[in-house]
Amino acid sequence: MQLGMIGLGRMGANMVRRLLRDGHQCIVFDTHPDRVRALTHEGATAAMSLDEFVRALTRPRAAWVMVPAGEPTEQTVMALAQRMDVNDIIIDGGNSYFKDDVRRAKVLQAQGIQYVDVGTSGGILGLERGYCLMIGGAARAVERLEPIFRTLAPGLGDIPRTPGREEPGSTAEEGYLHCGPVGAGHFVKMIHNGIEYGLMQAYGEGFDILRNALSQDLPEEHRYDFNVADVAEVWRRGSVVSSWLLDLTATALAEDPTLSNYTGFVQDSGEGRWTIMAAIEEAVPADVLSASLYARFRSRQAHTFAEKLLSAMRQKFGGHVERPAGG
Amino acid sequence: MQLGMIGLGRMGANMVRRLLRDGHQCIVFDTHPDRVRALTHEGATAAMSLDEFVRALTRPRAAWVMVPAGEPTEQTVMALAQRMDVNDIIIDGGNSYFKDDVRRAKVLQAQGIQYVDVGTSGGILGLERGYCLMIGGAARAVERLEPIFRTLAPGLGDIPRTPGREEPGSTAEEGYLHCGPVGAGHFVKMIHNGIEYGLMQAYGEGFDILRNALSQDLPEEHRYDFNVADVAEVWRRGSVVSSWLLDLTATALAEDPTLSNYTGFVQDSGEGRWTIMAAIEEAVPADVLSASLYARFRSRQAHTFAEKLLSAMRQKFGGHVERPAGG
Amino acid sequence: MQLGMIGLGRMGANMVRRLLRDGHQCIVFDTHPDRVRALTHEGATAAMSLDEFVRALTRPRAAWVMVPAGEPTEQTVMALAQRMDVNDIIIDGGNSYFKDDVRRAKVLQAQGIQYVDVGTSGGILGLERGYCLMIGGAARAVERLEPIFRTLAPGLGDIPRTPGREEPGSTAEEGYLHCGPVGAGHFVKMIHNGIEYGLMQAYGEGFDILRNALSQDLPEEHRYDFNVADVAEVWRRGSVVSSWLLDLTATALAEDPTLSNYTGFVQDSGEGRWTIMAAIEEAVPADVLSASLYARFRSRQAHTFAEKLLSAMRQKFGGHVERPAGG
Amino acid sequence: MQLGMIGLGRMGANMVRRLLRDGHQCIVFDTHPDRVRALTHEGATAAMSLDEFVRALTRPRAAWVMVPAGEPTEQTVMALAQRMDVNDIIIDGGNSYFKDDVRRAKVLQAQGIQYVDVGTSGGILGLERGYCLMIGGAARAVERLEPIFRTLAPGLGDIPRTPGREEPGSTAEEGYLHCGPVGAGHFVKMIHNGIEYGLMQAYGEGFDILRNALSQDLPEEHRYDFNVADVAEVWRRGSVVSSWLLDLTATALAEDPTLSNYTGFVQDSGEGRWTIMAAIEEAVPADVLSASLYARFRSRQAHTFAEKLLSAMRQKFGGHVERPAGG
Repeated sequence: MQLGMIGLGRMGANMVRRLLRDGHQCIVFDTHPDRVRALTHEGATAAMSLDEFVRALTRPRAAWVMVPAGEPTEQTVMALAQRMDVNDIIIDGGNSYFKDDVRRAKVLQAQGIQYVDVGTSGGILGLERGYCLMIGGAARAVERLEPIFRTLAPGLGDIPRTPGREEPGSTAEEGYLHCGPVGAGHFVKMIHNGIEYGLMQAYGEGFDILRNALSQDLPEEHRYDFNVADVAEVWRRGSVVSSWLLDLTATALAEDPTLSNYTGFVQDSGEGRWTIMAAIEEAVPADVLSASLYARFRSRQAHTFAEKLLSAMRQKFGGHVERPAGG
Repeated sequence: MQLGMIGLGRMGANMVRRLLRDGHQCIVFDTHPDRVRALTHEGATAAMSLDEFVRALTRPRAAWVMVPAGEPTEQTVMALAQRMDVNDIIIDGGNSYFKDDVRRAKVLQAQGIQYVDVGTSGGILGLERGYCLMIGGAARAVERLEPIFRTLAPGLGDIPRTPGREEPGSTAEEGYLHCGPVGAGHFVKMIHNGIEYGLMQAYGEGFDILRNALSQDLPEEHRYDFNVADVAEVWRRGSVVSSWLLDLTATALAEDPTLSNYTGFVQDSGEGRWTIMAAIEEAVPADVLSASLYARFRSRQAHTFAEKLLSAMRQKFGGHVERPAGG
Repeated sequence: MQLGMIGLGRMGANMVRRLLRDGHQCIVFDTHPDRVRALTHEGATAAMSLDEFVRALTRPRAAWVMVPAGEPTEQTVMALAQRMDVNDIIIDGGNSYFKDDVRRAKVLQAQGIQYVDVGTSGGILGLERGYCLMIGGAARAVERLEPIFRTLAPGLGDIPRTPGREEPGSTAEEGYLHCGPVGAGHFVKMIHNGIEYGLMQAYGEGFDILRNALSQDLPEEHRYDFNVADVAEVWRRGSVVSSWLLDLTATALAEDPTLSNYTGFVQDSGEGRWTIMAAIEEAVPADVLSASLYARFRSRQAHTFAEKLLSAMRQKFGGHVERPAGG
Repeated sequence: MQLGMIGLGRMGANMVRRLLRDGHQCIVFDTHPDRVRALTHEGATAAMSLDEFVRALTRPRAAWVMVPAGEPTEQTVMALAQRMDVNDIIIDGGNSYFKDDVRRAKVLQAQGIQYVDVGTSGGILGLERGYCLMIGGAARAVERLEPIFRTLAPGLGDIPRTPGREEPGSTAEEGYLHCGPVGAGHFVKMIHNGIEYGLMQAYGEGFDILRNALSQDLPEEHRYDFNVADVAEVWRRGSVVSSWLLDLTATALAEDPTLSNYTGFVQDSGEGRWTIMAAIEEAVPADVLSASLYARFRSRQAHTFAEKLLSAMRQKFGGHVERPAGG
């Protein structure tokens, strides 16, 4: 089917490529004209302005917005809505906050425009592996887009079926899922990322303990000099902690077990933060997901004010003067 | 080759089966004679006492101890050592604390007996999938046991090679790894389980937030009624959080998305606790692994004394009287 | 000076009493007429409706709203604003979210009405000890209310001056502080409560470990049967952990060291939750404050869905069937 | 009465001074002769060797060891024991691990020597304020030392009595407590320090959020520029979070609200670590106490290996290249 794509960054461009390969027609627009041109060579139809983009789409239109969350998405969706008509569909495929989806969908509904939110996981390998799609919106709109979702998603592939799912039913097996009404897709994606932070931190801490097992503070008979690359590799084979993130860990450690090219300044995106806010709103304990987020906050500072206050208190009650490790 | 196995519980018995299938000779002993008999029918050689067990093994002997960690392992290893000779090998395949390995190996060394510790992951599916083996001990002893390890481990299978590991080198790719001197195997297994707790808790918290998204405390427009079984399934397909534990989650939720047959009393074994102790000894922050362990401690109590003290303080400063949710 | 007070619950009524004792004139209103009458007997001027309340106040009016945060405060402030005039002041003395202050102040500003937010700590002992007041708003409005604040606050009392503060300057020493523009008072109160949760949880965990030092899981030579009431008492005397919360702990434990009359279901109010949200918005790690909030969430549930999922995973990979402690 | 003191660092020397002022006789020894001489001028009796020290004490002797925990304490206690006799008492007043007390007491018991462990809190202000003493050992030995304890402890002072404790009973009110058999004193001191870490971290995080309320990431209408010194001061007056640690915080912030002279490298001593180990041995959740310890571990590193691994995984799945904040 036909789909318009606005935003041709790494994610948007690769999704267009995957759609073209499977025979879909794509109208593409981006504020960087060279990105538009690049995809034209691969079979997409170029639009050099938003007006041209909307005109090039056949009614009822389907326009996928793949630009950064926050202001860029807000402005693009609203600018599109001004140019679109009853029964058209706007898809927000970025990393939006689900409450923004709910608010925007209400505005668009007054115009008869459908709003569909799609959380997308898969990263830079998605072009080949396919994208895991978490979808929110009205059933009618989601159904209309099914050919697009089916192409973007990984499909059954060689991943074994879950026992008890022998009877095909949900599309979840094919890697895309209509999760519920508007916002549901980004809600599920938000939790996905929250979990992702937790998983990453669990591996991080475990490998940190392995790597420090050679510490001079330990009794000599309890020191070990582990080959962490080999440990990651062996765990990929039959252990309980095997996962895709472990596969990536094994790759990174095989390249350099000291990881000396990585700074350790770790960014976080909105989803990790919103996950904690959702937990708090629901009164669900989320110790691990929160700690994972805070580890990232901490990683971006030399010292927190909290730590200086600890030093100050220790000086006041104990006369302790703190010095750096090597100081 | 020939191996003696003491302890024919689920793990020990299945390991014997996997060894027999691959042509190894197994002498087996257990304090439950029916367990011994059962394996005899599958090709193992029965020993009805420890003395008989040791006599049945050809020198230099190799005896694998697969009994519960702590006292049972301690006593079995020491009883074996009394009956064995220079160059014999005792393998502790249970979940021992690595410091116990170091201590025991020293005692055995005085007799010329080799001690090898093997951490084993794979659970009840190990018979078919193979066991991930983390091995500690002197190189000479570990090498002698290589045929055994190769059979027990999963092998390359259909798990893709890690980029950068195209040149075969370490046995890690085949699912077994000599991690270092005595204790190294159980150290790595300890960390494996510590990570396992963290991964499990990350999924647990994420699904908890999903499941409570229907809470009456939320504004109606932000409530969702998610099909958590479908969410688990879709994440298995191309998402960043795919893993073996997620596969098991999907299986459990497909059976019953309310998990009402599970009590939620969650046991912990020594490894999770020792992981935290190792982190503390090395001064490595382990927020996520600790929080995961504490969630299990908390799950086994109706209320902690800490919570009662919170209630008491709130009563004293605010006059608050706490009542149960439904009270 | 004259002050109107709306909301005569425990906090509001005691604040009126403290003001009356110090010679201020109080106009009081509450939707429960008996509360109004009770204070009339102590010298307050009764108002039986909001209209009467506003009429009874001399211009420029000062009306203190002391009703539950959220809808009740919102409605009361807005109803008052409709009846008030330029230069009147509305004080929100409840536990409002600082963002609501900012929003409300903007609305009132259009009418020329001043909005002052006051966070109040002191609990049921505030009538005698005085209330610690954290104040936000425009300087002109805050200054006008200074006589009220000075009466409500504890004053210097017999608490020693902080070294370096020998020169009187800030009113902080007297127990009230103009913290900044609108919202600043409730922001500081929010953090106060966030810290309060953390302090309480620290004591809770510590006494929990003391109390469980008799656990049968410990080797007999390492078991202790502590008198926790005496421990709390001794720590009040010269130790680093002495505090008002410890004083309350000592009182509660002196009454009953088992705390068996307390349920352990621990409520939380908005401030603890908003503290975490503020931390996340600022990217400040708040591990301890978050964990303290989550301990309260957890205390109100029999079992979390997360815990059931842990049980389910353990069953799937290890065949473990979890049973309750006594099961 | 007479007491021997070995170890004349800040703590030991000040304790001797407090004892001398109250009329006790002190025999003092330290490996630094100038420390010994200094106290001689204040009335103590000098010993220039351990032999001389033991000879100078009247039988049954009482010798207080106040040297660093670990090896120095171990060696001093054992060297003393070799020179002492039946009914003599050795007091370990340092920060020993309670399990070491239990072990040492057993060794000494074979010689008929009593072992008493005393946890001491009070820091550099203890000379004037008195020391909070947590005592473990056999009743007979503890009773004999009561005059010493009474002098060192703060006494009732002007701290109000805990309601319900009007009838004098326990010595806890006077600031010293016989907590139980050998090890009990150091166990209680260990928990005291564990709680101390938690309290400090709670204040640290709270003030950190206050201080970052001016962050440019926040919407302008929600930014605040708090005077944190004033906030600390106002909380000392009638708030729920008042404490001695808050007093010290107020002092430090009054000197410099930016705390720019403090490095933020925060040391930890054994007690904080042992508290977590005790919690784990008892299966008591200790989220806050653990997080407080880990914050200190983290404060002493530029970046953890865990953080580098997070960066590496992010690069592998998302192509993210992490850069320092200012990079």
